[in-house]
Amino acid sequence: MNPASPAIDTARVTALLERGRTLATPVLRAAVNRLAPPMDAVAAYHFGWIDVDGRPTAGDGGKAVRPALALLSAEAAGAAPEVGIPGAVAVELVHNFSLLHDDLMDGDEQRRHRDTVWKVHGPAQAILVGDALFALANEILLELGTVDAGRATRRLTLATRKLIDGQAQDISYEHRERVTVEECLEMEGNKTGALLACAVSIGAVLGGADDRTADILEKYGYHLGLAFQAVDDLLGIWGDPESTGKQTWSDLRQRKKSLPVVAALAAGGPASERLADILAADAKKSETEIADFTEEEFASRAALIEEAGGREWTSEEARRQHATAVAALDEVDMPEQVRAQLVALADFVVVRER
Amino acid sequence: MNPASPAIDTARVTALLERGRTLATPVLRAAVNRLAPPMDAVAAYHFGWIDVDGRPTAGDGGKAVRPALALLSAEAAGAAPEVGIPGAVAVELVHNFSLLHDDLMDGDEQRRHRDTVWKVHGPAQAILVGDALFALANEILLELGTVDAGRATRRLTLATRKLIDGQAQDISYEHRERVTVEECLEMEGNKTGALLACAVSIGAVLGGADDRTADILEKYGYHLGLAFQAVDDLLGIWGDPESTGKQTWSDLRQRKKSLPVVAALAAGGPASERLADILAADAKKSETEIADFTEEEFASRAALIEEAGGREWTSEEARRQHATAVAALDEVDMPEQVRAQLVALADFVVVRER
Repeated sequence: MNPASPAIDTARVTALLERGRTLATPVLRAAVNRLAPPMDAVAAYHFGWIDVDGRPTAGDGGKAVRPALALLSAEAAGAAPEVGIPGAVAVELVHNFSLLHDDLMDGDEQRRHRDTVWKVHGPAQAILVGDALFALANEILLELGTVDAGRATRRLTLATRKLIDGQAQDISYEHRERVTVEECLEMEGNKTGALLACAVSIGAVLGGADDRTADILEKYGYHLGLAFQAVDDLLGIWGDPESTGKQTWSDLRQRKKSLPVVAALAAGGPASERLADILAADAKKSETEIADFTEEEFASRAALIEEAGGREWTSEEARRQHATAVAALDEVDMPEQVRAQLVALADFVVVRER
Repeated sequence: MNPASPAIDTARVTALLERGRTLATPVLRAAVNRLAPPMDAVAAYHFGWIDVDGRPTAGDGGKAVRPALALLSAEAAGAAPEVGIPGAVAVELVHNFSLLHDDLMDGDEQRRHRDTVWKVHGPAQAILVGDALFALANEILLELGTVDAGRATRRLTLATRKLIDGQAQDISYEHRERVTVEECLEMEGNKTGALLACAVSIGAVLGGADDRTADILEKYGYHLGLAFQAVDDLLGIWGDPESTGKQTWSDLRQRKKSLPVVAALAAGGPASERLADILAADAKKSETEIADFTEEEFASRAALIEEAGGREWTSEEARRQHATAVAALDEVDMPEQVRAQLVALADFVVVRER
């Protein structure tokens, strides 16, 4: 999707993601098993471990970028990767708490090619299981009983508050006609950057890193999160449903003020102005009317966004954030091998297609 | 409502509740002010600090039993009451997080004589602000940065998980024809006992108490919570709407399997059997049909519950739990003055009418 992207070291990235999954998943499953029925089964369905009828599935647990980062984070502080495991699990729990609640608030019916929890098990289970995963995240960290576990939990809590701020902004922007590029970036920094930043500091904090080191690692993670989200915004309009597991034109169906849209509206020029007129008219329509749009109607909006430069600007923004993230790594001492792996993961994030 | 209840020391209880309110409320307000708009205003509305139009109100912040307990908890460990303030605030934040989510899940339209948050601001704000209050609770405690703050947060997290378990049980029981007295007590122990228990240990833990002391204080708090809930269940059927701020026959309207109901069903005899038949028929009706019941239809169900002994059994259960709570206080050393105040609060809980 992005010809000028960095060449990625596929084998290295695959191994890193695989290590994160292998080390974190058993602990994540054991944590989820602490939930009382039926919440344990609802959570297992959400994570893709069982199907609607409760049968075990091969499962698509997502990309698992965050666990991979949390383990590297421990290594960045000179600790063993295993030291980052509770952090990896806690971050995954918070991430999935937010998915459960956001899917309900946003009315999203599909995630990872499957019906969302509120759609299958009802809104109450989506709320309850989300709440329970958030509590579990703190539990997993705090039962370590150390001062560093308290520091890690505090960082996770602050990241979670930003996540919530971002979702609140995201919701409010859907009802506004105009959102600036700056507002959109702030929202995405809260919604995606903060938790990814925490994934990159949490292992180091559990490994005894000082606050300065943790802050720099978070800087890398924050900008990586913005790069990640810029790519997500591209996939949300132009992604292949087969790869993303979402509907075609997913973000356009929800009238999301994502980066390509706000950048196109801010660009000026004939395509930008026509887009603005069309979206202003769309804003007056009901959700049902939007849902009834033909593929061609969505395609023509996507074409205008591209013509106004929104697609290209967002691709460049992903590269800018990637560069800022990678540059931050130079501000802190860490084993060269770990630095190279963090760079490889950053490269992967900007070229992924799902 | 309860002629055989202990005589309460009204002046002492009033002073304790007032002290809890006076010391905790400014810190609680400052915490809520950290929320980004519009969540800060939604939370302020929920707490009763502003009205629907954003105007400051005199406000009915609830009974404030939990903050009073958290300050006494610090004193039980020999610390100053102020040491318990972050604990008092954190417990209030978790309590109100659960109210926001539970009101939405239960479809409750009124709380404390006012429309609930989801009714005024919509489901998304009820979810988001609930999430934010939960996160804030951890934030307030963990920014103390001590090992004891980590211990306190862990206890609060475990209590929150029980709270969630209790709400899950409560929801599932509404769809079941029969719930045993034991199941009901377990649910109420989770839903009310666990957080009240935490309120009674959290100040002590922040004041450096060991785990044994904290566990005994939690035992007092847990049984106090069960006494509290038994009284709530009586008020949920026979309470005066003017005092409770809820509709008449509130729990019957929701077909809650509360203690008086399950005790009446378990009692056997003609009234119990007639009640069982009527409730089994009610279970097949739609929510709208139940909502359309006349006052007399609810009153006749309440009369059957009383005739079958459910009201008397629940009153006695409140007294039994009160006695177990007060007895637990003898297992731990604490200043006599503090013990007397904890007893006075326990006495208050079982005779209150709101």
